[in-house]
Amino acid sequence: MSYLDNLRAVTPYVPGEQPKAENIIKLNTNENPYPPAPGVAKILGEIGGKEDRKYPDPTAGRLTEALAGRYGVKRSQVFVGVGSDDVLGMCFLTYFNGNKPILFPEITYSFYPVWAELFRIPYETVALREDFRIAPEDYRRENGGIVIANPNAPTGIALSLSEIEEIVAGNPDSIVIIDEAYVDFGGESSLSLLDKYPNLVVVQTFSKSRSLAGMRIGFAIASEELISALQSVKYSYNSYTMNHAAILAGTASVEDEEYFVKTCKQIVRTREWAKGEFAKLHFTCTDSRTNFLFVSHASVPAKKIFEELRARNIFVRYFPLPKIDNFLRITVGTDEEMEKLFAALKEILAACRTGGIL
Amino acid sequence: MSYLDNLRAVTPYVPGEQPKAENIIKLNTNENPYPPAPGVAKILGEIGGKEDRKYPDPTAGRLTEALAGRYGVKRSQVFVGVGSDDVLGMCFLTYFNGNKPILFPEITYSFYPVWAELFRIPYETVALREDFRIAPEDYRRENGGIVIANPNAPTGIALSLSEIEEIVAGNPDSIVIIDEAYVDFGGESSLSLLDKYPNLVVVQTFSKSRSLAGMRIGFAIASEELISALQSVKYSYNSYTMNHAAILAGTASVEDEEYFVKTCKQIVRTREWAKGEFAKLHFTCTDSRTNFLFVSHASVPAKKIFEELRARNIFVRYFPLPKIDNFLRITVGTDEEMEKLFAALKEILAACRTGGIL
Repeated sequence: MSYLDNLRAVTPYVPGEQPKAENIIKLNTNENPYPPAPGVAKILGEIGGKEDRKYPDPTAGRLTEALAGRYGVKRSQVFVGVGSDDVLGMCFLTYFNGNKPILFPEITYSFYPVWAELFRIPYETVALREDFRIAPEDYRRENGGIVIANPNAPTGIALSLSEIEEIVAGNPDSIVIIDEAYVDFGGESSLSLLDKYPNLVVVQTFSKSRSLAGMRIGFAIASEELISALQSVKYSYNSYTMNHAAILAGTASVEDEEYFVKTCKQIVRTREWAKGEFAKLHFTCTDSRTNFLFVSHASVPAKKIFEELRARNIFVRYFPLPKIDNFLRITVGTDEEMEKLFAALKEILAACRTGGIL
Repeated sequence: MSYLDNLRAVTPYVPGEQPKAENIIKLNTNENPYPPAPGVAKILGEIGGKEDRKYPDPTAGRLTEALAGRYGVKRSQVFVGVGSDDVLGMCFLTYFNGNKPILFPEITYSFYPVWAELFRIPYETVALREDFRIAPEDYRRENGGIVIANPNAPTGIALSLSEIEEIVAGNPDSIVIIDEAYVDFGGESSLSLLDKYPNLVVVQTFSKSRSLAGMRIGFAIASEELISALQSVKYSYNSYTMNHAAILAGTASVEDEEYFVKTCKQIVRTREWAKGEFAKLHFTCTDSRTNFLFVSHASVPAKKIFEELRARNIFVRYFPLPKIDNFLRITVGTDEEMEKLFAALKEILAACRTGGIL
């Protein structure tokens, strides 16, 4: 017997690299290249620590209210947390207490199996189709809950609203979480299904479309009953999860719809142009509806390109995992950053051609 | 079978009241009446949302480094989280996985049983002595871990370093967490025991002595081995828990030792003066080493005083719980706030005398 015997054994999740050097092009963590709404800078400059001595509002009332207004739901249908990771983690802890395995795609956000293991939730993964698409009919087996990222990561591919509905309607006895981290870049949100399906939970984040990864804000929208269960668990863990700065920054972001729409459109425009550029260089590219591209070259291995880009201070994401180890996930940056990326890719491919790899 | 069958059932914890009205004297949640260090306002004004589009440093490196420097430990011995509630919650989840009950005092921070229930950790509470003191010899029984708030809440009473050592040394096979939320106001920190006892974990917060309740910052210091286990669980839950603003604000606070010492001393001075004032009004007062006082009047019920103060816009904390339901927990405010409190108390006691209660 030792004091170490009762430690929870987990396989540590290693977060993506956050290089500290200057002059790098960082396209590896799907951050937004544009700053948050101007109101965010304004409000942070104004608070100036004055209100920090007091506890923040445990209900994050202003932010919850702004989100309820923006998405046309009741305030009691909105739950906010420290990034969608906190929100999803709380969802796993709250909703998945059964003995049947929960289901999620074999290739998807890599945190799902980590949470399942952390909270000792049984799970099974469901294979994707050959073309990386999720097959809704595969989610018709017995389960203790379902989680679908839509659009999915790192493939970028979206299910249609009717495909999502097929999964939600086909599992009336399970809670189905749709993780819409990237939905604002061209996916169809399942929020419109909420009135019809009390077993549906929609999760979104401020880290991508709202350029607020640094402030850690995510939210869930569902029936009052499911949100209330989530609140009870959250209040049993930490009453005050959203700090004062995050509540104000998030609210300022939601209040500037025009800026939000404008920057999302710009990302989509850059993404669609980049798809064409990748094709010219003989990359295949999934039909991404996100702020990243999932690409594979016809002849040069992804790992080689990853390393060569990195040597040029351009960071993208490479997953040494079965089925996707010849792909790169590349965040959509500014047009200027993408032009530098393509210049580097041309250089790398030319060198490979000379070196006999191509 | 229903989608609701797998919900985690918890008794929701209701956070303390955060009244929104102006002109109130808020002495109910042990906030610090002084603003955070001037550097905090400065840094928040400067960041102005610019860095918010990127993910924060998942290791909260600057803050961790500042804390390691301040407390004379290695960086790998420091864990930071979203308030000490997040840190303590992670500690419960990480350290208390055995089948034997964990132990904590019967009267203490009310979150301990809530976390135990949330994570299904068996627990037993240990009675206090008649005078509300913790009896170290009572922690010599078989257990799966121990948590002691020192100074304890809501009594404010501190154990000496040798009494803490008695508990830690007497339980070499258990992890012992010392929750030092209030230690900077006159308790003895157990940090000096760390070199001797690898089963010790010390938790502190920025919410009290550093006036940063609004930013949600807490930390644990322990052996590298125990901190590493905590990091693994944290990274398995949420890689980025501390937002950008919290990392910078916390660092700015740690860097201003002079301001920290000055404001802590001011709170202690006000507290000691207040003890005398309470005695004059026939209140008994525990020997509080915190930023709050735990008081009971010789003849007027605590509940009555609580309600009368509230009617005068002075918020203090009343716990309708066995053994402490005739006590009030009153945060040490500014001298001016405390003078208003005593004026109100005199008025209330005079009215009780006239009304025949006294």
